Amino acid sequence: VLGSCQSQSVEGNGGGSSLPNLRWKMQTSWPKSLDTIFGGAQTVCDRVKAMSGGKFTITPYAAGEIVPGLEVLDAVQQGTVECGHSPSYYYVGKNPALGFGTAMPFGLTAQQQNAWFYHGGGLETMHKLYADFNVINFPAGNTGAQMGGWFKRQVNSVNDLKGLKMRIPGLGGEVMSRLGVNVQVLPGGEVFLALDTGAIDAAEWVGPYDDEKLGLNKAANYYYYPGWWEPGATLDLQINRNAWDQLPQEYQAILQAAAMEANLNMLSQYDAQNRVALQSLLQGGTQLIPYSDEILTAAQTIAFDLYEENASQDATFKEVYESWNKFRQEIIQWNKINELSYTNFVFK
Amino acid sequence: VLGSCQSQSVEGNGGGSSLPNLRWKMQTSWPKSLDTIFGGAQTVCDRVKAMSGGKFTITPYAAGEIVPGLEVLDAVQQGTVECGHSPSYYYVGKNPALGFGTAMPFGLTAQQQNAWFYHGGGLETMHKLYADFNVINFPAGNTGAQMGGWFKRQVNSVNDLKGLKMRIPGLGGEVMSRLGVNVQVLPGGEVFLALDTGAIDAAEWVGPYDDEKLGLNKAANYYYYPGWWEPGATLDLQINRNAWDQLPQEYQAILQAAAMEANLNMLSQYDAQNRVALQSLLQGGTQLIPYSDEILTAAQTIAFDLYEENASQDATFKEVYESWNKFRQEIIQWNKINELSYTNFVFK
Repeated sequence: VLGSCQSQSVEGNGGGSSLPNLRWKMQTSWPKSLDTIFGGAQTVCDRVKAMSGGKFTITPYAAGEIVPGLEVLDAVQQGTVECGHSPSYYYVGKNPALGFGTAMPFGLTAQQQNAWFYHGGGLETMHKLYADFNVINFPAGNTGAQMGGWFKRQVNSVNDLKGLKMRIPGLGGEVMSRLGVNVQVLPGGEVFLALDTGAIDAAEWVGPYDDEKLGLNKAANYYYYPGWWEPGATLDLQINRNAWDQLPQEYQAILQAAAMEANLNMLSQYDAQNRVALQSLLQGGTQLIPYSDEILTAAQTIAFDLYEENASQDATFKEVYESWNKFRQEIIQWNKINELSYTNFVFK
Repeated sequence: VLGSCQSQSVEGNGGGSSLPNLRWKMQTSWPKSLDTIFGGAQTVCDRVKAMSGGKFTITPYAAGEIVPGLEVLDAVQQGTVECGHSPSYYYVGKNPALGFGTAMPFGLTAQQQNAWFYHGGGLETMHKLYADFNVINFPAGNTGAQMGGWFKRQVNSVNDLKGLKMRIPGLGGEVMSRLGVNVQVLPGGEVFLALDTGAIDAAEWVGPYDDEKLGLNKAANYYYYPGWWEPGATLDLQINRNAWDQLPQEYQAILQAAAMEANLNMLSQYDAQNRVALQSLLQGGTQLIPYSDEILTAAQTIAFDLYEENASQDATFKEVYESWNKFRQEIIQWNKINELSYTNFVFK
């Protein structure tokens, strides 16, 4: 017999509280057309609604609807919206250590990133960094390992990269710049035209599913891999701390669970959809080319030089980098025994 | 009957419904000492309690407390308990296709398994299989890629395996048996003594963290990898269908979210803890040895022969196997471009 009717006195039930109706706004960094990544925000909202029986609803807004996609953290901090869906690395200008919450060139894979967040001290680290902005965060999406971009001509050596005009933002762009690339920053909506007309020679976006949507395969033929600058990019649910503190504990737990669902669901969705999109790209004539060991090795050296430079200039970055890097080295030791030895045999 | 409670207008708040108090039992397949895997069950219970404000509580029971660990599905089916935490492959005797819900030799990694469940039709497939037992399931834990077992002497070739007494259950055991191994089935509590006294020559359990707890490193010195028979074993939350159908929709959503949290959390925890335990094993003198290509190739051939045999004898197995195998081949194509090319460079 279900307990439901054993205690008919509802007020005395479960502490006698009834949960409040709440309506929140969520500003995201995405256009709705990117259904996989915007879908992460939508998952959080849908699941909170389902778990609260419609009492707690959050409406997700596309980039620009309330504030621009690169200003989500500011809007959450100021309480313009109660929460946002955005990657922490958009805000490295405010604190360079925020990069560790999304992805670092030659850093953690999606699975390692989650091990770091949930059982390696990573989430506590990010909470500390976000606290400066009166924000608490929970991972709420991951793209998985991305691709290495579209090129109009082949690049086999570091020398081939010199002077190349490439659309690539963030730390990946900084590494490319030190490799001699003429780095361009363009919003997603302008990438296709720039590449198609030859205004730029190369561009990176995400992976097969999203890239095909932008039509990048029609503007360039060589598709490089892997996307060594984003081996498992995490997107955050960012919540205004005052709004969070005022939530009943049930809603805090529900919001946290919805974020974790979105985190796992988005990664699964990207993997499943990229597997289909890859086939379609190959049938359309796209040529897959691995980055040469020369380029990868040079890029990795530059990336870790950059981290060391940042660490020498910024005590917070140093502290996060050192614990992150120790975790990275240890988990690589483990994952190369189990995951890598397995996949090297089975995937060949 | 829930209807009576739903109509209690509490304070006019949020539609006026108040959720019932529920007390459920969860039978697991695990001893409490295996804190990582039993922890998956505990996570589900803890999170349901938190999200429902203590109104919906589930108590997890160790193997044998209500029924034995291998009879969880039966107990859930009969309504002895409302739910269980157990891997589907314990029940392949009832339906061989249930193996796909946990792990198949040379099958999907944890991340691929999740892509299959959540976006490749896998969860719908498992729901159909479990429906025969009046049960609905949600993935609620993953061990990640396991290790290949402890050996008292080195095994380099298929010939070295002949006559070897090894503790290895399930389909992995069936493959080993066809390779000439004298397969032994022993419960976890007896593995150490059997290996230590030489009653058996080899034994597999899970991975560094759990294996060290059993003391297997003190009974054998050679630790083989990878665990090709369990590349990403999923544990299920199994719920009696009648109990599920009577849940308010909010509680259904909460239970499903708690399972997904446990699924991601356990994998993250295993990765984080195995990274530490591996260091400890190496410091203690354990020798890591990869399975030879000869053994892996022979084992893989036998595994897929087995699947084809099962498919020829069982229409349900055939249907699941064919869709699973198509998904497997496609996602391998994708993951070898992104994940594998990345990890091969970065982990080296």
